[in-house]
Amino acid sequence: MEIKLKASLEKITTFIFDVDGVFTDATLLVGADDVQRVFNVRDGYAVQMAIKSGYRIAVISGGKQKSIATRLNGLGISDVFLNVGTDQKLGVFDDYLLKNELSAEEILFLGDDIPDYLIMSQRRVLAACPKDAVQEVHEVCQYRSEVMGGKGVVRDVIELVMKYQHKWMKVF
Amino acid sequence: MEIKLKASLEKITTFIFDVDGVFTDATLLVGADDVQRVFNVRDGYAVQMAIKSGYRIAVISGGKQKSIATRLNGLGISDVFLNVGTDQKLGVFDDYLLKNELSAEEILFLGDDIPDYLIMSQRRVLAACPKDAVQEVHEVCQYRSEVMGGKGVVRDVIELVMKYQHKWMKVF
Amino acid sequence: MEIKLKASLEKITTFIFDVDGVFTDATLLVGADDVQRVFNVRDGYAVQMAIKSGYRIAVISGGKQKSIATRLNGLGISDVFLNVGTDQKLGVFDDYLLKNELSAEEILFLGDDIPDYLIMSQRRVLAACPKDAVQEVHEVCQYRSEVMGGKGVVRDVIELVMKYQHKWMKVF
Amino acid sequence: MEIKLKASLEKITTFIFDVDGVFTDATLLVGADDVQRVFNVRDGYAVQMAIKSGYRIAVISGGKQKSIATRLNGLGISDVFLNVGTDQKLGVFDDYLLKNELSAEEILFLGDDIPDYLIMSQRRVLAACPKDAVQEVHEVCQYRSEVMGGKGVVRDVIELVMKYQHKWMKVF
Repeated sequence: MEIKLKASLEKITTFIFDVDGVFTDATLLVGADDVQRVFNVRDGYAVQMAIKSGYRIAVISGGKQKSIATRLNGLGISDVFLNVGTDQKLGVFDDYLLKNELSAEEILFLGDDIPDYLIMSQRRVLAACPKDAVQEVHEVCQYRSEVMGGKGVVRDVIELVMKYQHKWMKVF
Repeated sequence: MEIKLKASLEKITTFIFDVDGVFTDATLLVGADDVQRVFNVRDGYAVQMAIKSGYRIAVISGGKQKSIATRLNGLGISDVFLNVGTDQKLGVFDDYLLKNELSAEEILFLGDDIPDYLIMSQRRVLAACPKDAVQEVHEVCQYRSEVMGGKGVVRDVIELVMKYQHKWMKVF
Repeated sequence: MEIKLKASLEKITTFIFDVDGVFTDATLLVGADDVQRVFNVRDGYAVQMAIKSGYRIAVISGGKQKSIATRLNGLGISDVFLNVGTDQKLGVFDDYLLKNELSAEEILFLGDDIPDYLIMSQRRVLAACPKDAVQEVHEVCQYRSEVMGGKGVVRDVIELVMKYQHKWMKVF
Repeated sequence: MEIKLKASLEKITTFIFDVDGVFTDATLLVGADDVQRVFNVRDGYAVQMAIKSGYRIAVISGGKQKSIATRLNGLGISDVFLNVGTDQKLGVFDDYLLKNELSAEEILFLGDDIPDYLIMSQRRVLAACPKDAVQEVHEVCQYRSEVMGGKGVVRDVIELVMKYQHKWMKVF
């Protein structure tokens, strides 16, 4: 692991995640009355462990369906911002940091597509992406996971931080 | 990129897409009361960007479910022709061009299967297909994407045109 | 293609298909009120073409959900036998041939798992299987498709027969 | 096959399975009113054969949805323990063995993630995992399947035992 990444990992107290293409495999199951998303159980386990260990987790998504919040609330994530347009993501991010008195350096931000690009390229977060992120996002990332969206990339970055900080598998 | 493809890309003002196997991975989730389809969020982002940038987008599909139109209308595509039989696709295509005063050379047509074949082989469109298109369609295509249906092939062809025309990532 | 397979292909008038692992990818989407299956649109197109061209198609499945019949009836298959236990499949098969005055040599049977095994090993059908069929079935097959269940294996065997008999793409 | 594994296989009378990532591919299809899981038909067939042949099967899962039990009961598994928290799995396991007068050596336990870890590492079961189990679980397994969760790993371990004990394909 390169020295710069190590220095960044040391400071992380907070994870901010996009949803589609990060918690999910970027698919939407479209039916008559509902849109479903494909989450991964192994991500859920890591989220619960991170929260138990004292990390802060927030989610900022352009997705509209309440079921996103239901799933994430169920894992213990209370800060879920939905229906955030591409041009609003940076503002929601900045507000969140301000209200919670967080500095960007404390944040690992995991995103996969252009709507995440401004945060990842213009704020001093630890920018991370799934293996199947779009090219533009890939180029501005400090940590490029080998795991695809919806296949455990959330867990991969949580383990990355928690193992570096010697907190992984300390609670059950 | 070959010269002939470049010449075609220059003229594109309009995208016409099939749905199953193009916007989706060709699967149908069949349940008691509904048939669901597996769309891709990253395609949706590209469609929205293309429309914001002034491109025209239409969809011609044999699919029957209203949820197709709901999804595509939500992305800003108003010209959605559903329940179009294999033997009607060419007629619907010709009517659309006539009513909107479009020439075939302005159209990038993305299809994957035999029902798309007549349009792709008999009209002077820029014929494009996903990686997993059937052989007959593959053979008549000018642009064969490396991306599978439902995995972002719609985005791939939109980026192809918009990048060539220097319009990609000019608006957010 | 080997000579024995050619001789078998010449005689085929009828396709008999299993459902799970053949028309579908062997998955079941299990929810509170329903079980969904993952069909493939490209199979559906081939089924419609085969029926238009005069082939007979029947389906014998252990599956219980009416939605299987709804999907297959919609493609034009009227002979759909559901809820057929493993120990009943051979009997249903024999009855079907008797009632319709068919000889086993006219039948291409496509199956993937042990419940199909008796028909495939004990009747003189053209036994075919998807790439991911179980080992026991693989061993008794005359035609082993390179295509997985639910990914177009139904289409693969229909094209195999129709192309050999010069009937593919003769009607639209 | 190594001698130690053979010795373990000989003693197995009972299978205990986790659900998510074992019977399923670890995904959750999250919609407005329900969470669906992706089971595999080929696993179901093996479960039914194992029960017919006299094996005992139980399931211990952190999953909450009743549909898990509905699916598994339908296959003939009556001992289904749901909503079992990570810190409760070991206790539920021990109780089950006690009540049914089973010794750990009779059990093949198939799990994929940390909540299964304590049982797999601290009890003298035959510990088995799918190919995509997490690293910690992989390391404590005696049998590491080449099959992924939800793609037939349940069947793989059932066949492993039943073939070793000369019981596979003896009943239909």
